[in-house]
Amino acid sequence: MTERPAQMSNPRADRVKTVARLAGRSARQKQNRFLAEGPQSVREALRAHLGEFEATLSGHWGQGVVEEVFVTEGIAALHPDIAELIDQARASIQVRVVTDEVLEALSDAVTHQDVIAVCTLPGARRSVEWLQQHVTSPKLLAVLCRVQDPGNMGTIIRAADAAGADAVLLTSGSVDPFNPKAVRSTAGSLFHLPVFTAVDLSSTLDSVRELGHQVLAADGYGEEYLVNLGSALARTTTWLFGNEAQGLSPEERDLADARVAVPLYGHAESLNVATAATVCLYASAMAAGSVDSASH
Amino acid sequence: MTERPAQMSNPRADRVKTVARLAGRSARQKQNRFLAEGPQSVREALRAHLGEFEATLSGHWGQGVVEEVFVTEGIAALHPDIAELIDQARASIQVRVVTDEVLEALSDAVTHQDVIAVCTLPGARRSVEWLQQHVTSPKLLAVLCRVQDPGNMGTIIRAADAAGADAVLLTSGSVDPFNPKAVRSTAGSLFHLPVFTAVDLSSTLDSVRELGHQVLAADGYGEEYLVNLGSALARTTTWLFGNEAQGLSPEERDLADARVAVPLYGHAESLNVATAATVCLYASAMAAGSVDSASH
Repeated sequence: MTERPAQMSNPRADRVKTVARLAGRSARQKQNRFLAEGPQSVREALRAHLGEFEATLSGHWGQGVVEEVFVTEGIAALHPDIAELIDQARASIQVRVVTDEVLEALSDAVTHQDVIAVCTLPGARRSVEWLQQHVTSPKLLAVLCRVQDPGNMGTIIRAADAAGADAVLLTSGSVDPFNPKAVRSTAGSLFHLPVFTAVDLSSTLDSVRELGHQVLAADGYGEEYLVNLGSALARTTTWLFGNEAQGLSPEERDLADARVAVPLYGHAESLNVATAATVCLYASAMAAGSVDSASH
Repeated sequence: MTERPAQMSNPRADRVKTVARLAGRSARQKQNRFLAEGPQSVREALRAHLGEFEATLSGHWGQGVVEEVFVTEGIAALHPDIAELIDQARASIQVRVVTDEVLEALSDAVTHQDVIAVCTLPGARRSVEWLQQHVTSPKLLAVLCRVQDPGNMGTIIRAADAAGADAVLLTSGSVDPFNPKAVRSTAGSLFHLPVFTAVDLSSTLDSVRELGHQVLAADGYGEEYLVNLGSALARTTTWLFGNEAQGLSPEERDLADARVAVPLYGHAESLNVATAATVCLYASAMAAGSVDSASH
């Protein structure tokens, strides 16, 4: 970094307490902010902030992703790539050099991993209609219906990013994807594609059908097997995935064009929702995508 | 249940303390036992004990899977299927009716979920040579090289079961799959297929090649893309998956016939090992398997 601000060393400072409260949902909504913890999340937040990804994504986040970063003095030696990104973003973010003790007070993680960023929540007004206007032809979308576990939520967002999904949409009653554990589980993918919260399922599916999408419900008791869908998998698709304990409700299932089971070849009675989502999203991606569109 | 033994109500009883110690690896090895906690794990342990799965699996476990179950008085009302399995197994297992307080003292889980079983570790002598003798033609095997996180370990064992793998093999330096968190994450799948620990990678791969297997290493930097393997995926295959942080070592990679990358279509830089294993194992299963061999 080009200059070094005075080090913050008081873990009981008001600013530290205010930021630490972002571990809770009500503080996130009140402050309109959330935490990105650790090098992987902060790196991808800074890259999104600097506009390294699609213009769509910059539009999703609005004026800027990162407001403030907290780093220890050792950041340049430990993570030179992050120090470089911080330098590039310096005009538009607040940089605070802090002690280990302050970083520990800021985070609920077992290890704070050297760096924490305070990020702005994307505008709640961003919805699938907005996506319809800004993304010419989304090919793959994932809708999560009332997924409850932050680890599952993060894992599915990461898998959706890897499979090239254009967005992830969460219905009301889903766990908050800006919860620190969910953010950590996305391993940076939260900053790679738009994640819409509190969407209405029925009107969302009307919108994606206007975009030409087929709507497939992942359902262990579905009448179709994933392995038998053949070339239909290569079509533009919106997948629905359900709650961990109950799966999709009958009403949610009925909104889909087909209910699709991931085959169980062994003795397992069911799949974890994150595992099922991974298999379904990758089946679509690999049926539709050529290797030219993938990166190592 | 047909009879009701006297209720155990002292959470400080010696037997309770001895069982609770099975949360630790050294106690598991010393006692040659491990814990199955919660209805899903205990149900599948009892089914394995009663020989409901392949004869191979009964051979893997040896004389019996379950030694002792701890249940509350409410078990018959809460989980009639488990009460029925306990009745069927009564001649060969010890049944202890206990208070909630005793169940809580037995387990390190946040919720004990009404029932806990003490199980015997499968014989350490069971190896891939044993599998070679007892399974006519294993089609799909998964080898985990130094996977460290119990949640990942359990998730991969569950996905391997779902994909119809014939066994999971763990090299030395892997997390113990009989650790309570790993057992819970398998959601019963630990009792559905043989899981071999502390295998030697090089001699294991010699053995699977004698069985006609191709050996594929899942490797983000691999020279082949999964999506381009085509009909080669339908061959009998042993997959190698690496450590969370470092992936496969150069030595481990070199032992494979090919290094295969799961394509990344979005901005994600890598996949969690459990996600990569799920995609690879299901790609093999769906290429090889017809839907006739799968169940809902």
